[in-house]
Amino acid sequence: ISGLALKVWMFLKRAWAIAANDPRKVIHCIKVGLALTIVSLFYFMRPLYDGVGRNAMWAVMTVVVVFEPTVGETLYKCMNRVCGTFLAGFLAVGVHWFASRSGERFEPLVMGASVFLLASAATFSRLNPSAKSLFDYGAMIFILTFSFVAVSGYRVHKLFDLAHQRISTIIIGTSLCILVIMLVCPIWSGQELHSLIVHNMDKLADSLDVCATRYFNHSGECTNSNEEADKKLQGYKCVLSSKATEESMANFGRWEPSHGQFNFRHPWKQYLKIGASMRCCAYCIEALSSCINSENKAAESIKKHLSSSCLKVSSSSSSAIRELAETVKTMKKSSIVDLLVGEMNSAVQELQNDLKSLSYLLNPSTTPEKKKLETACIEATTTVPLMEFIPVVTLASILIEIAVRIEAVVDAVEELAKS
Amino acid sequence: ISGLALKVWMFLKRAWAIAANDPRKVIHCIKVGLALTIVSLFYFMRPLYDGVGRNAMWAVMTVVVVFEPTVGETLYKCMNRVCGTFLAGFLAVGVHWFASRSGERFEPLVMGASVFLLASAATFSRLNPSAKSLFDYGAMIFILTFSFVAVSGYRVHKLFDLAHQRISTIIIGTSLCILVIMLVCPIWSGQELHSLIVHNMDKLADSLDVCATRYFNHSGECTNSNEEADKKLQGYKCVLSSKATEESMANFGRWEPSHGQFNFRHPWKQYLKIGASMRCCAYCIEALSSCINSENKAAESIKKHLSSSCLKVSSSSSSAIRELAETVKTMKKSSIVDLLVGEMNSAVQELQNDLKSLSYLLNPSTTPEKKKLETACIEATTTVPLMEFIPVVTLASILIEIAVRIEAVVDAVEELAKS
Repeated sequence: ISGLALKVWMFLKRAWAIAANDPRKVIHCIKVGLALTIVSLFYFMRPLYDGVGRNAMWAVMTVVVVFEPTVGETLYKCMNRVCGTFLAGFLAVGVHWFASRSGERFEPLVMGASVFLLASAATFSRLNPSAKSLFDYGAMIFILTFSFVAVSGYRVHKLFDLAHQRISTIIIGTSLCILVIMLVCPIWSGQELHSLIVHNMDKLADSLDVCATRYFNHSGECTNSNEEADKKLQGYKCVLSSKATEESMANFGRWEPSHGQFNFRHPWKQYLKIGASMRCCAYCIEALSSCINSENKAAESIKKHLSSSCLKVSSSSSSAIRELAETVKTMKKSSIVDLLVGEMNSAVQELQNDLKSLSYLLNPSTTPEKKKLETACIEATTTVPLMEFIPVVTLASILIEIAVRIEAVVDAVEELAKS
Repeated sequence: ISGLALKVWMFLKRAWAIAANDPRKVIHCIKVGLALTIVSLFYFMRPLYDGVGRNAMWAVMTVVVVFEPTVGETLYKCMNRVCGTFLAGFLAVGVHWFASRSGERFEPLVMGASVFLLASAATFSRLNPSAKSLFDYGAMIFILTFSFVAVSGYRVHKLFDLAHQRISTIIIGTSLCILVIMLVCPIWSGQELHSLIVHNMDKLADSLDVCATRYFNHSGECTNSNEEADKKLQGYKCVLSSKATEESMANFGRWEPSHGQFNFRHPWKQYLKIGASMRCCAYCIEALSSCINSENKAAESIKKHLSSSCLKVSSSSSSAIRELAETVKTMKKSSIVDLLVGEMNSAVQELQNDLKSLSYLLNPSTTPEKKKLETACIEATTTVPLMEFIPVVTLASILIEIAVRIEAVVDAVEELAKS
């Protein structure tokens, strides 16, 4: 028994951790309970029950099936459910009327054939990716209602009443859901997408910073903050894996009415473009982080030579990303983004110059006028084989590539600002 | 009217293209229609209808909701639906018995509170990621059945009959679905995952090949096959974006009984690991493809110097991937994978040597004994600034990194072979 109690205790503890980690999950659960309890009133209160009768269960079912964490998803399902039911209801009554005219013998045949054909066609439309995002759920509800109403019509004689009751109870259920989801602490898909993009930008910037500083002054770091730095370094992985989330949020976002800073038809698709361009950056940061974990050690002298300009590139790029995040967050045109991008580009230029000077270091013959450098170069060339250059040079060129890709992010954000 | 006809014609044409592209979609649609028509017989045939009565609609609903393209997903939904209904049915009858003992005044209160609590708790369990993949749908059905049976209990007097009929119709619906999905051209999630991984490996190999050959002998290619090569080059993007698909397939795969070459508990999770390691390779190929599109032109002489060893690395890596794909496909231990990996590693070694010799080219002082090379180096150093080295060197080091990551793929595949 003590083992069981311990297990229950562990389970409760874990549940509490999840709840404390994201209180909105708890709020969502309470909202579901609330909506279901309200819809149960249709059973418990005599006058309401008399109005809809046994079909009150359709309202209960609708609430269970349609209620989702975000407003956008709930609206999508509500719209789809209502439209699918309407369309299928009318069609089913029509087909039933036609079938009942065709004689008792053919009626089941006509009904069966219509169910087969329409179910197949609706299923086919569900498999089309572009339709899927718009009315996947609606197509399912269409099949459901059609086969239900059409087939019941063979046995139930007040078919029109059945269709009418089903539609009215579904409207009761959906309106209740919409009220509860929008009035009690609403979670908007669009808002979620917006803050996901902003957070991801911050994570990218952090990763980039940690990557570069860790490579160039590993010893300077105190071991205390190492764990935190590791966590920051892994930030880009969130960006890599957030594609599916972004897409579904953008998809649901377009169903939402205007809320907070966003209008009804906010260009959510543009956020997907920003997300894609950020993912391109993240690919490069992935390559960068594999560089810093590489076994090929670079020569310290070369590292030192390039460290200041590399760090400048990384810090200016990350501050450009942070400024972009701020722009997206506040939805105001930032005056200093262009400045920061310019700074980033000049840092890139400087890094390229440093790389060039590295080549002078290597090839004394091309810079006969710089005596001092030459001696340095002799030192370098005699002690540093090219192999030890390669890691640093690779790192530098990946940094340059990251700067190029950040400009793509800047363009995407600017396009969002315009639209 | 002609405009409408044209639109309909275009629509049909597009639908035909989709159907021709993947005939299995059409088969799936036909299967849905078939299952629905069969389940409709419960309405059309007197003896069957007498058996279940108006509740036959639950069987129809079950078929519509549960029928999915793959066997695994259908089984997952069937199991969840049956278990959720059973559990909720028993619990609801119990709660109803308890509530009916507590007096007429308290009955609605007890029922309402139980609906609120259980619905909230079940919703909470749905939000837990690890539970989500196992019984997300089951939890929804649990809430649905519980509130339906418990709340109806207040008005319906033969509650036990209601619960019993709901369970038996759901069992009829699910068994029909399972029969149709498994007997008529079944599509297995596991099989799909298996071939997705194999195809993705081939795509990776193609991308890698095209990348390297395009960089080193751009002129040698005929423009005719350019389009095809472009398509092959983009292959790695499929690998980058297939994470979500892989995960859901692996998730559904574990519900499937043994089929074809796979046993009941085939280690599908291992496929996810292979997929993840392949994605790591794809990130590098992404970086590689940005290298070949880079504006910084490399010096031809350096390109020539490294081209043979780079091409050797890329071709040996891609043939190692192809062999891995073959191993996974046939599920037989390949005798030559180790050989190919060895070849790849020696190609990497050769490339590293070439890079080293490049350093001798640059630093004549370190190789005083090689007169011939020295003259070559003087030529090189006077004509080629280091800047023009960088693109090739970066490319070479990314190629080396890819080879390292391919070894991770090899390890993952070997682990799969063991388990």
